[in-house]
Amino acid sequence: MINVTVWNEFYNEKNSENVALVYPDGIHSAIAQFLGEDKDIKVRTSTLEDEEQGLSDEILKNTDVLIWWAHSLHGYVRDDLAEKVRDRVLSGMGLIVLHSGHLCKPFKLLMGTSCTLNWRDNDRERIWCCNPSHPIAFGLPAHFELESEEMYGEFFDIPKPDDIIFLGWFKGGEVFRSGCTFNRGYGKIFYFQPGHEEFPTYKNINIQKVITNAVKWAKSDVTRQDFECPNPEALEV
Amino acid sequence: MINVTVWNEFYNEKNSENVALVYPDGIHSAIAQFLGEDKDIKVRTSTLEDEEQGLSDEILKNTDVLIWWAHSLHGYVRDDLAEKVRDRVLSGMGLIVLHSGHLCKPFKLLMGTSCTLNWRDNDRERIWCCNPSHPIAFGLPAHFELESEEMYGEFFDIPKPDDIIFLGWFKGGEVFRSGCTFNRGYGKIFYFQPGHEEFPTYKNINIQKVITNAVKWAKSDVTRQDFECPNPEALEV
Amino acid sequence: MINVTVWNEFYNEKNSENVALVYPDGIHSAIAQFLGEDKDIKVRTSTLEDEEQGLSDEILKNTDVLIWWAHSLHGYVRDDLAEKVRDRVLSGMGLIVLHSGHLCKPFKLLMGTSCTLNWRDNDRERIWCCNPSHPIAFGLPAHFELESEEMYGEFFDIPKPDDIIFLGWFKGGEVFRSGCTFNRGYGKIFYFQPGHEEFPTYKNINIQKVITNAVKWAKSDVTRQDFECPNPEALEV
Amino acid sequence: MINVTVWNEFYNEKNSENVALVYPDGIHSAIAQFLGEDKDIKVRTSTLEDEEQGLSDEILKNTDVLIWWAHSLHGYVRDDLAEKVRDRVLSGMGLIVLHSGHLCKPFKLLMGTSCTLNWRDNDRERIWCCNPSHPIAFGLPAHFELESEEMYGEFFDIPKPDDIIFLGWFKGGEVFRSGCTFNRGYGKIFYFQPGHEEFPTYKNINIQKVITNAVKWAKSDVTRQDFECPNPEALEV
Repeated sequence: MINVTVWNEFYNEKNSENVALVYPDGIHSAIAQFLGEDKDIKVRTSTLEDEEQGLSDEILKNTDVLIWWAHSLHGYVRDDLAEKVRDRVLSGMGLIVLHSGHLCKPFKLLMGTSCTLNWRDNDRERIWCCNPSHPIAFGLPAHFELESEEMYGEFFDIPKPDDIIFLGWFKGGEVFRSGCTFNRGYGKIFYFQPGHEEFPTYKNINIQKVITNAVKWAKSDVTRQDFECPNPEALEV
Repeated sequence: MINVTVWNEFYNEKNSENVALVYPDGIHSAIAQFLGEDKDIKVRTSTLEDEEQGLSDEILKNTDVLIWWAHSLHGYVRDDLAEKVRDRVLSGMGLIVLHSGHLCKPFKLLMGTSCTLNWRDNDRERIWCCNPSHPIAFGLPAHFELESEEMYGEFFDIPKPDDIIFLGWFKGGEVFRSGCTFNRGYGKIFYFQPGHEEFPTYKNINIQKVITNAVKWAKSDVTRQDFECPNPEALEV
Repeated sequence: MINVTVWNEFYNEKNSENVALVYPDGIHSAIAQFLGEDKDIKVRTSTLEDEEQGLSDEILKNTDVLIWWAHSLHGYVRDDLAEKVRDRVLSGMGLIVLHSGHLCKPFKLLMGTSCTLNWRDNDRERIWCCNPSHPIAFGLPAHFELESEEMYGEFFDIPKPDDIIFLGWFKGGEVFRSGCTFNRGYGKIFYFQPGHEEFPTYKNINIQKVITNAVKWAKSDVTRQDFECPNPEALEV
Repeated sequence: MINVTVWNEFYNEKNSENVALVYPDGIHSAIAQFLGEDKDIKVRTSTLEDEEQGLSDEILKNTDVLIWWAHSLHGYVRDDLAEKVRDRVLSGMGLIVLHSGHLCKPFKLLMGTSCTLNWRDNDRERIWCCNPSHPIAFGLPAHFELESEEMYGEFFDIPKPDDIIFLGWFKGGEVFRSGCTFNRGYGKIFYFQPGHEEFPTYKNINIQKVITNAVKWAKSDVTRQDFECPNPEALEV
């Protein structure tokens, strides 16, 4: 059983009618719903307005894979909590960063780069798989379309990904490394570009498959607790 | 001074009026022309109909960077010569494989994969740089357009590139890893997707910059002659 | 269930008393024995002297993961069979290349490089894990020792591995990238350095764990049958 | 001309007689001395006790490649200055982190991991090159020895390096990825393990060659000033 926590800043859904129409219970609820249908996944949600901003020790300790959606309130996340999330990833927790989460504190701490990109509201996107044997691509077609999605374009200032799984094509003329994996410490990280709050991206069956696959991929079998620098004796030679 | 040999099968230019109109002296001549304007590059050309198919020991020995264009006659290249090219790359010769060269024998020998892809005649392409600090991208804009180019689309069956420099966007709806680097042995390899024989791609100033940059990048400072497996004594411990 | 075929040239065991004492039934049998104890693995063996050199279509078609041990008879393996093995890997079959298999035809075809290295008989080796969260390292200690092993040392002429899992330390003063992974097409490849025929390496519990882990890692969930270059219509834009 | 700044916390040299005997003018001076002999390099030094901890805007702005040596006072480096160094790297400044600098703030910010490792005082090290055609290995032998060096051993908690150039062998039984490169933003980073303050490592001709090579490799031809997320219009399609 994989323990997943879907974290959401949960702001746009409560402050924009457009968004509320698409995700009346919040993006986290929409994601939790389809993940909860998988028999191997046990899902819960938490949000910025919860105690400890939804990132308490109890929650992080019991999370195998954390999904992060945020857009408007990156700056409100406490630095100490962002560092706790980073440290949990280094200890082995999986992290799936969605869409505008590219600028969230934990992702930037783990990447070390600015994570900036180009963007434009409301374009048509076609997502291509350039790594069809990767577990995150399992069961996905060679390409699929999102009628409305926010364009994210290169240059995306990230470290070289371990694997690029998806490339995004936008009608407006751009391309993007839309699905990228990174290992940091014992933790696996997947960044996935689609998911603007005004569009029903998370109700798309292919998007749901990608995120479900990513959860299963990101679950680590091993964890690390101690981050000291040991000083051992010389070995038998 | 970098010794460059531009190799071309030189078939379409002599057997298709369309192509002859664009490249009356062959694609190799068009490439040699702009490379020859660079004071650090000494360029010559060779073609399939030359002695030893244009890949004699004398030529290979005196080539720092080999540029390869081919389309229709991959099967006519002798296996022993393809293997010589591969071995020269492992010894330190740079190799730049252009467009339909993705199926040429030396490239397939070096990659180990099928190098297959999707394709379609005559689309509009926009090339994006996703690695702007790489030497091959030096002086290039964030993106540039080719009014007419052959679409090459994913899945492109290559090993994971060391670096992806360019991504191609096609009006017809596809994307492609259009500029990729690989190290093999002591040699550097750059694959670059644009360059269909019916279009004046190699007269485009940005394409010329990319290829010129790639030549300078692919020149190796060190070479290897011996491919034995040495059997040394134990070292002082 | 993972269908594993352990292929062995099976020569040294029949032509050297030293080797026969260690592996009286052949290295393939020793490997098949411990793999067969895993409930998820169904194992068979084949050797160079079998029909079709032990690499018949029937065998390859029904093999999820092929393990390859060879040393003295690389040149006797038929080129067409080596190419079939390569093609099966590109189609999704896993390949585990052991020790002196570094010079076998299928591995060289897949790598594209010379795969040469330094070597010396009979040294003491300590294997370190530099990627402890990788599935192939699961359950392994930070390091373990082999009292007697053949030294393999750098420079090892392979393409940059996707992941380096193990580094070898040799008492005689050398180091080696002893456990490396590569993806080629849909197939996963693991090269593992220990396993000289005169030493009981494959009876070491840690070595057995590594190979068992590698089998489970190398099994692909997806396969590819067609290696054409499709020519699709333009998509809806 | 490459503008190099050698930064040193300059503490051990003033507080330990052993160290003062080896580096009476500080490690920074020893490094600056051999770098200054290269006609392409213009070198200056700065230390923790300088104004703005030796990391003023003026210094950082005029530094193409920053070399960092530190050991005891990582915690004293101001967070805002560590972030400035990180940002300058993302803008294109090269960074060479030496030995115990693996725990310095700028390196940890850029890596995103704990950068922890195993260590032991005073061992004999042999450094092997596993990437002989990389510019940082230019002119270096296949291996070279350091009679006395601090052992640094795996597991080294860093992101997967872009390239591993050197592997360290230690008489006491350990191995280490001793020379690793990383690209972050427009900046190139080289971590190099040797350089304990009690030993004359920086007087070793091979060590000097490595650092000189690394300076030339780390100099970027392009820089980036703006880290916004642009919001462009759709392109002509």
